Amino acid sequence: MSTQASHPALLIPGPIEFDDAVLQSMSHFSESHVGPTFVNTFGETLGLLRPLFQTTNPASQPFVISGSGTLGWDLVAANLTEAGEDALVLSTGYFGDSFADCLATYGAKPTKLEGPVGGRPQVPEIEKALSEKKYKIVTVTHVDTSTGVVSDLKSIVQAVRKVSPETLVIVDGVCSVACEEIAFDEWDLDGVITAPQKAIGCPAGLSISMFSGRAMEVFKNRKTPPASYFASFKNWTPIMQNYEAKKPSYFATPSPQLVHALNTALKQILARPLSERFQKHKEVSDKVKKAVADLGLKIVATKPEDQSSAMTAIYLPDGVQIANVLPKLASRGVIFAGGLHKEIATKYIRFGHMGVSVTDPARTDIDNALEALKTSLAECGYTKA
Amino acid sequence: MSTQASHPALLIPGPIEFDDAVLQSMSHFSESHVGPTFVNTFGETLGLLRPLFQTTNPASQPFVISGSGTLGWDLVAANLTEAGEDALVLSTGYFGDSFADCLATYGAKPTKLEGPVGGRPQVPEIEKALSEKKYKIVTVTHVDTSTGVVSDLKSIVQAVRKVSPETLVIVDGVCSVACEEIAFDEWDLDGVITAPQKAIGCPAGLSISMFSGRAMEVFKNRKTPPASYFASFKNWTPIMQNYEAKKPSYFATPSPQLVHALNTALKQILARPLSERFQKHKEVSDKVKKAVADLGLKIVATKPEDQSSAMTAIYLPDGVQIANVLPKLASRGVIFAGGLHKEIATKYIRFGHMGVSVTDPARTDIDNALEALKTSLAECGYTKA
Repeated sequence: MSTQASHPALLIPGPIEFDDAVLQSMSHFSESHVGPTFVNTFGETLGLLRPLFQTTNPASQPFVISGSGTLGWDLVAANLTEAGEDALVLSTGYFGDSFADCLATYGAKPTKLEGPVGGRPQVPEIEKALSEKKYKIVTVTHVDTSTGVVSDLKSIVQAVRKVSPETLVIVDGVCSVACEEIAFDEWDLDGVITAPQKAIGCPAGLSISMFSGRAMEVFKNRKTPPASYFASFKNWTPIMQNYEAKKPSYFATPSPQLVHALNTALKQILARPLSERFQKHKEVSDKVKKAVADLGLKIVATKPEDQSSAMTAIYLPDGVQIANVLPKLASRGVIFAGGLHKEIATKYIRFGHMGVSVTDPARTDIDNALEALKTSLAECGYTKA
Repeated sequence: MSTQASHPALLIPGPIEFDDAVLQSMSHFSESHVGPTFVNTFGETLGLLRPLFQTTNPASQPFVISGSGTLGWDLVAANLTEAGEDALVLSTGYFGDSFADCLATYGAKPTKLEGPVGGRPQVPEIEKALSEKKYKIVTVTHVDTSTGVVSDLKSIVQAVRKVSPETLVIVDGVCSVACEEIAFDEWDLDGVITAPQKAIGCPAGLSISMFSGRAMEVFKNRKTPPASYFASFKNWTPIMQNYEAKKPSYFATPSPQLVHALNTALKQILARPLSERFQKHKEVSDKVKKAVADLGLKIVATKPEDQSSAMTAIYLPDGVQIANVLPKLASRGVIFAGGLHKEIATKYIRFGHMGVSVTDPARTDIDNALEALKTSLAECGYTKA
């Protein structure tokens, strides 16, 4: 029985379609988490995250922890903020709002800056906010999966370094790492948290992150202990450093199978220049967005410069219901997602275009999906005005 | 390429050897975490935990969350204790001590009761401690993987209900669920946290737990919000209840592949009476312990009634080093673990006997391991006195 047996193309903004070799790595025979073969694999995997994030600074610290993308918010909140400290949360949708909730859980005081639905906070607003109060961290969702809005990380860091240079800049890169450019060192980022099941192309079950030397210093200088046990840098940093040095170490049992799959996915990604990968995602995204416009449909991310390459959030035409169109797409072997942003949830659908569906020339997932979208909308009675 | 290709038998106290069908489930093609097929699988999996834990009380609440066994401690500490509350920690080794550290991280005040190395706290001591102070919870490590000591849960709950009936009894069952009896309802337990990679026989990467209606009431009556975001009952309870009711729900993306593997493992376990499974583990454990005694070796868990069926921690003979004996075992295709308990770490090795290595009649892992142990010790110059 093939585990990849005929199945619909999963084109939601994560999990995405996975490569056969990655899925096969998930079935690796059982190994000791502290035995030399797995220690070697895990150490290599941590090392491969450095080129993925484009960091060569040895002070940068990678983490791979069993969990989900959400656990990355806990890592940030429990280690890099202390009770009562201010956090500036740049929100472009559901995930920015939730990051703020996580920060507040650990006692930080989040201030949210948000654009209109489908937009993003602008640099002058960000500079103004930073000049009014001392913020310990600024958080930004690189691509908010609820809207498909991409943030301009480089300009944001420049604004922070100009107005409040010590403030840490933390990126939620769950829906951007491995499909949108992230130049960790060059842009002077302090942290990027992500997850494997989107553009990295590996099954869910891990929290993956990279923190700067500056962020690790801020952690070391905390006045209070970290506010989590499982998400504590104190517990995990020596473990990650030991594994990367190919030395066994134990805090909590990692998932060898997921780490093998991540290793396979990272080697596939890094076998080609990252710039080529980002360009390919941009080209396919442009094609999707043009096809959507040609159908007479509107994209949630209003301005072209706010539209991510990872996904497209598409408003449905008047009179077409999500509950009608998604099953019609599914009957054609195409899985899209419904809406998630609370203000517009019933009005739009989401199309993820990441990973092998974009980069593997043998796959026709994207063209099939565009064709299925056109036919399904027609069956729902929609004709372009 | 077979992912189970010839490999040494992993006989550490977790991860253990996995069944082929379980490993194959790890490679399941990608599915939406909120699509009907995966929602059905996840819901069914949560339901299968009820018979595994022997609970039919509808108020019992199962959780399956991406993470590790360790995350279960955070679930307990962040949801069932509040800052300043007292916790009585019954420790039989490394894992009891670490549970206390986790409780302290979230502001609880742990008091540790421990036996001598290789022993356990006795019921009269537990009753005395409970009568001296009001404890919010008692935690007990069912089988401490650092020593192989098993605790007598039934007697502990009886003591708690007699002296301090409202105190919650929480079990760390990471190294006991699915090989040692746990009668959740009958024994009146309030929580059992575990992980898949031991006797359940599924790869690591999940935190698995069951909490009583009493525990969930205690959570609902908290005076302060839960002290974690990722490990919050508030965030996860509605998600678990929705999935079990076969309704899609979202807080953080689960790992469909791990959930499929857990589903397969649970169905295999529940296809036979649990009592038969526990008995088989007991028989194999007795055989191992007799063989170890016949070799003239001492077991860390001193008294027979303190010895778990899951594993055997074995003192090395004088003059035999871990660094000599483990590679000799490995050269015979047998992986044991070194010591973990800080007071005796260099003096003993650990042999895990759980799951398919014990229950699959086609496997000769245990006999091979006993033979390899005998030969390896002889090569190290040991002869029975």
